[in-house]
Amino acid sequence: TWHLKKLTSVTDLTPDNVNTIIMLADKIRASPHKYQGVLKGFVSANLFFEPSTRTACSFNAAMQRLGGRVIDVSGSSSSAVKGETLHDTIRTLESYTDVIVMRHPAKGAALEAADSGSKVFINAGDGTGEHPSQALLDIYTIVREIPARQRLSVCMVGDLKHGRTVHSLAQLLVQVFPNTKITYVSPKGLEMPTDVWQIVQQAGGDQSIEQDLHTAVSSADVVYVTRLQKERFNSQDDYEKLKDSYSITQATLALMKPDAILMHPLPRVNEIATECDKDPRAAYFRQMENGMYARMALLSLCVLGHEPVPHHHHE
Amino acid sequence: TWHLKKLTSVTDLTPDNVNTIIMLADKIRASPHKYQGVLKGFVSANLFFEPSTRTACSFNAAMQRLGGRVIDVSGSSSSAVKGETLHDTIRTLESYTDVIVMRHPAKGAALEAADSGSKVFINAGDGTGEHPSQALLDIYTIVREIPARQRLSVCMVGDLKHGRTVHSLAQLLVQVFPNTKITYVSPKGLEMPTDVWQIVQQAGGDQSIEQDLHTAVSSADVVYVTRLQKERFNSQDDYEKLKDSYSITQATLALMKPDAILMHPLPRVNEIATECDKDPRAAYFRQMENGMYARMALLSLCVLGHEPVPHHHHE
Amino acid sequence: TWHLKKLTSVTDLTPDNVNTIIMLADKIRASPHKYQGVLKGFVSANLFFEPSTRTACSFNAAMQRLGGRVIDVSGSSSSAVKGETLHDTIRTLESYTDVIVMRHPAKGAALEAADSGSKVFINAGDGTGEHPSQALLDIYTIVREIPARQRLSVCMVGDLKHGRTVHSLAQLLVQVFPNTKITYVSPKGLEMPTDVWQIVQQAGGDQSIEQDLHTAVSSADVVYVTRLQKERFNSQDDYEKLKDSYSITQATLALMKPDAILMHPLPRVNEIATECDKDPRAAYFRQMENGMYARMALLSLCVLGHEPVPHHHHE
Repeated sequence: TWHLKKLTSVTDLTPDNVNTIIMLADKIRASPHKYQGVLKGFVSANLFFEPSTRTACSFNAAMQRLGGRVIDVSGSSSSAVKGETLHDTIRTLESYTDVIVMRHPAKGAALEAADSGSKVFINAGDGTGEHPSQALLDIYTIVREIPARQRLSVCMVGDLKHGRTVHSLAQLLVQVFPNTKITYVSPKGLEMPTDVWQIVQQAGGDQSIEQDLHTAVSSADVVYVTRLQKERFNSQDDYEKLKDSYSITQATLALMKPDAILMHPLPRVNEIATECDKDPRAAYFRQMENGMYARMALLSLCVLGHEPVPHHHHE
Repeated sequence: TWHLKKLTSVTDLTPDNVNTIIMLADKIRASPHKYQGVLKGFVSANLFFEPSTRTACSFNAAMQRLGGRVIDVSGSSSSAVKGETLHDTIRTLESYTDVIVMRHPAKGAALEAADSGSKVFINAGDGTGEHPSQALLDIYTIVREIPARQRLSVCMVGDLKHGRTVHSLAQLLVQVFPNTKITYVSPKGLEMPTDVWQIVQQAGGDQSIEQDLHTAVSSADVVYVTRLQKERFNSQDDYEKLKDSYSITQATLALMKPDAILMHPLPRVNEIATECDKDPRAAYFRQMENGMYARMALLSLCVLGHEPVPHHHHE
Repeated sequence: TWHLKKLTSVTDLTPDNVNTIIMLADKIRASPHKYQGVLKGFVSANLFFEPSTRTACSFNAAMQRLGGRVIDVSGSSSSAVKGETLHDTIRTLESYTDVIVMRHPAKGAALEAADSGSKVFINAGDGTGEHPSQALLDIYTIVREIPARQRLSVCMVGDLKHGRTVHSLAQLLVQVFPNTKITYVSPKGLEMPTDVWQIVQQAGGDQSIEQDLHTAVSSADVVYVTRLQKERFNSQDDYEKLKDSYSITQATLALMKPDAILMHPLPRVNEIATECDKDPRAAYFRQMENGMYARMALLSLCVLGHEPVPHHHHE
């Protein structure tokens, strides 16, 4: 049995939960046809208050590949424009559906929404807050790509202040792999926020700040790059001066270990040069695909309350 | 057999039709899995020229829960922006689909659209005109919640002039329950329109206007509240002065009969205080769920032309 | 077996391909239930960077009627707004889906997108470039409506410069029916572009320009009308002066052969008067429906890599 019905933060997940999801994701990937009907008769509402191609499509494909149905609800078409509270929107959607997957621009909105309803709820990103299913797929990618080792070294690069993916990932990493060493490389003013730093600290995580990208990547098993957004800088000049120091090129790849991997939550703009795409260590497109399987595992567990039983006949 | 293919107004519905829908809605609710495939192979176009979370989602979930497929067509992405007539849009969509569910801002558009095509058509609201499936779910809610009685007393509160839900409901009520007594409570200038009043009158309905909300609610079996929209008032001042006199609070609930119910088509803004939500007489969220079942019944009858045959095996 | 996986231009299609699609479209139309599950388990991404009611709905209905699932991705909600390249968007969507159907405002975007991925890709219109599935459904309509004859005469009317449907159709016509005679009737400045003219020429096509609409239509088996867009003219005056000379009315129909047909890709504005709709030669709404069947054939062939096997039991 699986008890988790509402996922708003990575702190909702135990290491056991994460392992169950990872193992199930692998089983589904191995025999997708056997899982094709396990959510037949269930309906999901994809409630996106801000656009997101990849997260919305990934959850949509995950639900549909399990035989479930999806209703897309965009923020602009939603009754929120008529002044409805988030609480009422959630209660209404729960009248029609079995799962709500929500993206919202405000930090904390996920918790408010989860508390409003009684069915399955998954936070698909709330402002600068959390994005727990992204952390799950990131961990899944690391487990698939990096053989088990004594000590995992992860280097996070870019805007660590606003990137909710790295906030969720850092917390989940120390929870699942206690021997992880995390190194942060970011421009001044865009460092990992204090609250995340403290959570990692209290969990006994080994974390440090590194100024030089090249030093940091050379010893890492995982280099995790996030977007540097122009609008976060005081001036266009500041951005132009800095962006290259945090960009990954073939020269950066040359410094990386031969069995390391390069990750990015995508979309990327200039942070990773396209010349890197052909390098086998570039894992970001595989990471996307892992996301769909991780979400298939997550959705089926939360909706059914137990591991889905694979069908032996093509249904 | 079921003859109705086009539902543009509640006047299309006989009391027999309403009873068939209510009984079928109850059957589907009792064994949803048995009805899971009855619209397999059928496709619905949800053509919404103005946004509507709940009506669109409700019809979408209804169709998909019956095994049908849905294509969402928003007004802004539609060829209407290229100058296409409503007639051509309907004929085009009918080339691909078996049902059209339409929401349109202009009163009368539903009839024009229904006349353009030859397949199943359901009016999901046309401006200040009608919203017949809302009236169906309202009646369904009343039947489910209030035990059969000699004389049903319904009190309608709020903006009765622009609220198409109350226009459709009043007409359908007197048609289905000839012994209904309807009381209207509304601000000056927002009274029930003359044409609706006359239809109710001709059907032999017992209707009256009441100035005082408290008097009206104390004898009602059903208190039906609608939205007071700020933009309908001459001034912000007028709105602020009046809105509280038409708001339902715990104090109002205290005056209501113990077996009465409180309904609202939602979304609400200030018309019903959230403190009322926990009162068992607050029926508005149950009303939402009833809507999905009523629409499942309506869609399956109109598309199949007869009552759907429940499947005995999980398909 | 069927080798074509990417359709960006009509030049990708051999006459054999076209025949296979036409014959399969007819089989599916004859027994839609037998094909209802052939794409079960497959997911399509409908990536529309500009709105299009009919093409989007037609592909959506086609996929769903074959048992497949669809994810609608609109350009505005896409990561393109965050500066993502088309290449990355395609690679991402391919992580989740089995087919990408794309509409894009820029000529050439279809080829760029097709080259970015490795799965099935179908160009649903790229700017003033091509729209090959429209040409397929146009050919399918001609084959269904006009008995085989020694020499087919097609008259194309309207804005032949910007109409990508006529660009694709002219090229495909001479490829599939070497004995076609094409006559072009268009306002000055909106003639068929030189590159299309040359392709038709090199394929041995018999083409000519005709100034007078009435002369042109009287000898045609097929009159194919396209939209005259106001914004393509130098002045409103120019448009008003010209639009009637390229409009089809009952008077025009009176000049047409009794077994000719009148086609239009729709939406129409004033190019064909609604009075023509009742004439049996008005084929444009049948053309719409043919489009869905042609796309069902195309999708199933490209996704499966062979002709779908019809099911004998209602699945």
